[in-house]
Amino acid sequence: MEELDYLANERKSAKFDVEAMKIVWAGSQQSFEISDRMSRIVASDPAFRKDNRTMLPRKELFKNTLRKAAHAWKRIIELRLSEAEAAKLRFFVDEPAFTDLHWGMFVPAIKGQGSQEQQDKWLPLAYRMQIIGCYAQTELGHGSNVQGLETTATFDSETDEFVLHSPTLTSSKWWPGGLGKVSTHAVVYARLLINGKDYGVNGFIVQLRSLDDHLPLPGITVGDIGMKFGSGAYNTMDNGVLQFDHVRIPRTQMLMRVSQVTREGKYVQSDVPRQLVYGTMVYVRQTIVADASCALSRAVCIATRYSAVRRQFGSQDGGPETQVIDYKTQQSRLFPLLATAFAYRFVGEWLSWLYTDVTQRLQANDFSTLPEAHACTAGLKSLTTSTTADAIEECRKLCGGHGYLSSSGLPELFAVYIPACTYEGDNTVLLLQVARFLMKTVSQLGSNKKPVGTTAYMGRIEHLMQCQCNAQRAEDWLKPSVVIEAFEARAARMSVACAKNISKMPSPEAGFAELSPDLAEAAIAHCQLIVVSKFIEKLQQDIAGKGVKEQLEVLCSIYALSLLHKHQGDFLSTGSITPKQASLANDQLRSLYAQARPNAVALVDSFNYTDHFLGSVLGRYDGNVYPKLYEEAWKDPLNDTVVPDGYHEYIRPLLKNQLRTARL
Amino acid sequence: MEELDYLANERKSAKFDVEAMKIVWAGSQQSFEISDRMSRIVASDPAFRKDNRTMLPRKELFKNTLRKAAHAWKRIIELRLSEAEAAKLRFFVDEPAFTDLHWGMFVPAIKGQGSQEQQDKWLPLAYRMQIIGCYAQTELGHGSNVQGLETTATFDSETDEFVLHSPTLTSSKWWPGGLGKVSTHAVVYARLLINGKDYGVNGFIVQLRSLDDHLPLPGITVGDIGMKFGSGAYNTMDNGVLQFDHVRIPRTQMLMRVSQVTREGKYVQSDVPRQLVYGTMVYVRQTIVADASCALSRAVCIATRYSAVRRQFGSQDGGPETQVIDYKTQQSRLFPLLATAFAYRFVGEWLSWLYTDVTQRLQANDFSTLPEAHACTAGLKSLTTSTTADAIEECRKLCGGHGYLSSSGLPELFAVYIPACTYEGDNTVLLLQVARFLMKTVSQLGSNKKPVGTTAYMGRIEHLMQCQCNAQRAEDWLKPSVVIEAFEARAARMSVACAKNISKMPSPEAGFAELSPDLAEAAIAHCQLIVVSKFIEKLQQDIAGKGVKEQLEVLCSIYALSLLHKHQGDFLSTGSITPKQASLANDQLRSLYAQARPNAVALVDSFNYTDHFLGSVLGRYDGNVYPKLYEEAWKDPLNDTVVPDGYHEYIRPLLKNQLRTARL
Repeated sequence: MEELDYLANERKSAKFDVEAMKIVWAGSQQSFEISDRMSRIVASDPAFRKDNRTMLPRKELFKNTLRKAAHAWKRIIELRLSEAEAAKLRFFVDEPAFTDLHWGMFVPAIKGQGSQEQQDKWLPLAYRMQIIGCYAQTELGHGSNVQGLETTATFDSETDEFVLHSPTLTSSKWWPGGLGKVSTHAVVYARLLINGKDYGVNGFIVQLRSLDDHLPLPGITVGDIGMKFGSGAYNTMDNGVLQFDHVRIPRTQMLMRVSQVTREGKYVQSDVPRQLVYGTMVYVRQTIVADASCALSRAVCIATRYSAVRRQFGSQDGGPETQVIDYKTQQSRLFPLLATAFAYRFVGEWLSWLYTDVTQRLQANDFSTLPEAHACTAGLKSLTTSTTADAIEECRKLCGGHGYLSSSGLPELFAVYIPACTYEGDNTVLLLQVARFLMKTVSQLGSNKKPVGTTAYMGRIEHLMQCQCNAQRAEDWLKPSVVIEAFEARAARMSVACAKNISKMPSPEAGFAELSPDLAEAAIAHCQLIVVSKFIEKLQQDIAGKGVKEQLEVLCSIYALSLLHKHQGDFLSTGSITPKQASLANDQLRSLYAQARPNAVALVDSFNYTDHFLGSVLGRYDGNVYPKLYEEAWKDPLNDTVVPDGYHEYIRPLLKNQLRTARL
Repeated sequence: MEELDYLANERKSAKFDVEAMKIVWAGSQQSFEISDRMSRIVASDPAFRKDNRTMLPRKELFKNTLRKAAHAWKRIIELRLSEAEAAKLRFFVDEPAFTDLHWGMFVPAIKGQGSQEQQDKWLPLAYRMQIIGCYAQTELGHGSNVQGLETTATFDSETDEFVLHSPTLTSSKWWPGGLGKVSTHAVVYARLLINGKDYGVNGFIVQLRSLDDHLPLPGITVGDIGMKFGSGAYNTMDNGVLQFDHVRIPRTQMLMRVSQVTREGKYVQSDVPRQLVYGTMVYVRQTIVADASCALSRAVCIATRYSAVRRQFGSQDGGPETQVIDYKTQQSRLFPLLATAFAYRFVGEWLSWLYTDVTQRLQANDFSTLPEAHACTAGLKSLTTSTTADAIEECRKLCGGHGYLSSSGLPELFAVYIPACTYEGDNTVLLLQVARFLMKTVSQLGSNKKPVGTTAYMGRIEHLMQCQCNAQRAEDWLKPSVVIEAFEARAARMSVACAKNISKMPSPEAGFAELSPDLAEAAIAHCQLIVVSKFIEKLQQDIAGKGVKEQLEVLCSIYALSLLHKHQGDFLSTGSITPKQASLANDQLRSLYAQARPNAVALVDSFNYTDHFLGSVLGRYDGNVYPKLYEEAWKDPLNDTVVPDGYHEYIRPLLKNQLRTARL
C-alpha cells in the first residue's frame, strides 16, 4: 500500500537531519521515545477518534469524553504505564476532561498542602480514582483576586466541624473543570472563620457527591455553567457552578500542611515555609509554557504544510500556480511563528530546570532566588500564552478560507487554547507583577542587593543606559552579542524610564497605577529578552545531527529580528538602535526567510505529530488535502438527506408564495 | 415594573446628550428611526429568539434558521416594509442565512451584469423569492485568483447551449453560502470556451434544484461543506460544494451586459465600460466597512458595560472592589477600540458618499477617480476587518474568564465576524493592491498626473519628506494639523522608502515581491491616514447636541494617538516624530483616557443596541450580570439531569475499579 507523499519534494529540499531534530525538539532520546510511543497508541486506537467532535451536540459530546477518559484509564492500567507515560497518553487523547483537573490540580493540591496524615488518607484513593476530585477556587464574582473570595468555612467547636457556606450569589464557585457533573470531591477554597474572626483563604477537602448514586450531598447545589467558545473545545469539560448551604465537613478536612486548626479552635501556623506556594506556582506555570510551545507548533505545522500545498496566482504559461509558502508576505508572517515555537520550547526546557533548582534551594531553606523565579515564570506564562493565542489565529488566517472549516483543526485549537491567557493568572495582572518586580530591582540598583538570574543584566545598568549598538551591516545582526545587547538595552531603558516617570507622581502607588500600560510594555520587553537569551544559550551547547544547529541558528535569528522589527518603536524610542540599524535588521530578516524556506516542512515534521493529534485535513503529513476536505464535507449531518429538514415547512411555502397562510 | 439599572451612576456621569449622539452614530434622524424601529420589531418577537443558538446541533440549528428566514420574509410582507427597512430587519435578525446571498450577491450580480432582457426575466422572480439564488465563484482550489478558476462553460452551437462542467476535484465550487441546501439557482462563474478557445471567466445563471421537489437537477452534485468555526456562527449557513457533470443551460443564461455570445458562437464585447465591475466592488466593500464598525461597536459595548460592572482588587476597608474600567491597563486597551468604532463609522459614511460620487462619474464616462477609489476601498476593507477581528477577541479578553462563555456573546461574534478578513478579497492580497497603487503614485510624482483623492497628500511630497513635527507639549497633540502632518509624513516616507528599495532590485516585479511585507506596512500607514483624516473632517462639520462634538474630539484624538503609539516604530524610523514627541503623545493619551472614562458607558449606549441584538449577558443594558449568568447556566442540556448521561457506563465502573471488565 504505497502512499503518495505530496510534500516529498519539500522534504527532499531539507538541509538537515530531521530525526536528530526530533530529539532536540523532544528534549531527549527518552522523552522522544515516550511521546512517540504514546502518540501512536492513541492514534491507532479507534476509540480515540476525534474527527466527529465538532458535530456532536453537547450531551453526546460530553458522554463521548467520559467514554474516552474511561478507556484511557483502562489502557493505562492494562499497559501498566508509568506516571509520565500515562500523562503523555492523556495529553495525546487531546480532549479536555475531568481527569485534567483530577491529576493536574486535585492531586497536587493535596500533595502540596495536605499534612502527611491527609496525604496518606486521600492520595491512595485519588491515585486509584476511587474518588475523583477537582479544584474549586474561582467564584462567580472573584477570579484574579483570591483574597476576595466570599465562600466561608466556619469552625463549629461543638461538633468539631467546618460549616461551608455560600453567603451570596457572587460567592458561587464558578468555572472549576470537572465540577459540574463528574467530581465526587473537591478542594474548596474558603475564608476560614473561627469565633467570628477571619483567618483568610484556606483549602478544604469536601465531598460533593454520593459514591453510591452520584447524587449531590445535602446542602450542595452543583451543575454545569453552559456552553463555551467553540463547538468542541472546552465543551467536553463540565466546568461547574457550586453553592453550599451550610455543608458540614470534619475538621480534619482542612488542608493542614501550612496551617492547622486545633480541636479547641486555635489557628496555628506550622514551620513549613509559606513560600512553598510560590514553588507550586513556578511548577504549574512552567507546564503552561511547555503547553504553549506545543499548541503553537501544532498550528504552525498545519499552516506550514498547507502553505506548501496551496497554490495561488503566478501561473506561468498555464503551469501550476505559485506555492503560497513562496510569497514573502506569507513567510514574514509564518516563519517568525515557526521560530517562536522553537524559542518557547527551549525556554520551557529551561524553566523546568529552574523549577528543579528552586525546589532544591527551598529544601535547603534558600529563598533568595524565589522572587526572581516567580516573576520570571509569571512573565513567561503571560508572554507565551498571549503570543500563542494570537499565533494560532494568525496560522488560521494563513490558511485562507479553508482555515475557517472545522476540519482544518485550527478553530478548535484556538478555542481550546485561549483560556490559557486567563487561567492561572490573568495575563495582564501577571505582567504587572513582573513590572512590580522590575521596579523593585531598579530601585535597589546601587545598593548591596545585586540583581540575580534573569534580571542580572540590570547589574550593568550604567553600560546599558549609554551603550550604542554597533551593527553596521545586515550580517552584524547575526551576532548573538549584538542582538542580546540591543534587547538588554531596550528592556533596561524601558524599566528605568518607567521608574523615573513614577517618581514624578504624587505617590509610588498612584504612579504605578497611572503608568501601568507602560509598565506592562516594559515587562514584555524584559520577558522577550529572557526568551531570546535562553534560545542563544541553548545554541552554545553541543547539538548533534547534520545541519541541526545551523537551522536552529537561523530560527533564533528570525525569532530575535522579527521581534525587533515588530517592536521597533521600543528600540528606537529608547535609542537602543538607530533607524538605519532597524532597517539593516529587516534586510537580514528577509535573507533569513530565504534560508528557512527549503527547510520549513522538514522543520515542522520534527515536531513528530501524528495526523490524529494534529486533527487537521490541511495539515496532513502527506499533503493530500483536497480529496480529504471533500470527503470530510459529506460527513456533516446536514448531508444526511439531499433535501434538508425544514424544506416543506419553510422553503417550499416561500418559493410558492404561500407564506401568508403558513404557520411558522 | 420598575427595573433596577446597575449602570445608572455611569449614565449620570456622562457629560453629553446621549440622544443626540445616537443620531450622529446612525448618520441621520431617518436612519436612526428605521434602525430603532426594526431592531425593536425583531427584539420583541419571540420567533427571533437566539439565546439557545449555541446549544443546537447542526441540523436543528439550520432548520431553525430556515424558520427565521421564512418568518422574517412573512413579516416583511405583512408590514409592507421598504427595501431599506427589510434589509435592516434582516440585519437585526442577526443570523447568517441563505437570504444574505440571495439579496446581497445573486440579485446585485444580475442587476450589474445582466442585460436588460435578463433583468426583466429574472429579477421579478428573485424579488418575490420564487427562486432563491446564490453566488458560485470560489472553488476548492481557487479563491483570490479568480482568473485561475477551472469550471468550464463550453458553447455548443448545435443546441445553442452552454455545457457547464467541473473537470477536476479542485474545480468544485466550494464555500458559496446558500448553495449547500437551499438555493434553486446560482450565478456560476466559469471559463467560457468557444471552439476550443478560452475567453476567460464569465457569469452564468444556472438552475440547480427542481422547483417541484427541491432535488438537484441531473448532472449536479451539491451539498454542504461541513462545520465551521464556532458553535452557532456561520453554521446556520449552508456553505456549499457543487460539481457539474456536463450540465446544459440555454445560451441566454450567460450574463450578457458586458460581453455576449451570439447564436453563431461569436464572442462580442458591448460598449458598456468594463470598469463597472470596479464600481460594484467599491459598493460591496463599502458595506463591509460599515459592518466592521457595527461588529466592533457591539463588542466594545459589551466589554465597556461589563468593565463597569465587574470589580476586582482594590477593596478599601471591606468596601467594594475597584471597577475594572478604572484600571489604566483596561482603559488603554478598551478606549482605543471605542474610538476606533466611531472612526470606522465615519469613514464608512464617507465611503458611501464616495460610492455615490464614483457612480455619478461613471455615468458621465469619467473614470479618472476610479483607480484611487478602488484602491482606497480595498485598503479600508482590509484595515477595518483585520482590526475589527482582533478587536472583538481583545474585547473578549477584557471580559476576563466570563468572556469565554457563549452567553457573553463574544465567542460567537468573533466566529461569525472573522470570515470578513477573507471574503471579498483576502486582506493581505488587498493591501498589496493598495501598495501597487501607491508605488504607481510615487512613480508619477513630478509628472503631469497629480495624485487625487486620498492620495492627494503625495502631491506635497517634498514638504512631507523633510517637514519636522512641531509638537512641543503634550497638548500640541490635540491639534488636528499636527496629527495629520505626522500621519502624512509617516505614510509618504514609508511609500517612498519602498519605492527606493524596489528600484535597487533586479526588476520592479522582483523588488515588489521581495519587499511585499514592507509594502503591506506602507499600505496600512496610508489607510490609517485616511481614517484619521476622515474623522477629523467629520469634526469640522456642525454637530448638534450638548457636548457631542467634544466627546467626538476626545475619541478622535484617542484614535489617532493610540495608533501613533502602537506604530511608534514607523513614526520614529521615518523621522516623522522624535522619541520625545512620541512620549508626549503618550502622556496626552493618558489624560484623554481620564476624560473618556465618565462618558464610556453613555458612549456605548449611543449605539442604541437592544439586548436582543447584543446577545450578551455581560453586555446587558441594566448591568444585571451575575443573576443572569447563573440563570443561563442552568439552561444547558447537560443540566437536564442531575446525574449525567454516561455515569453508569463510564464513571461508576471507574470509581468502583470495575473498568477491566467493562465494555467501553
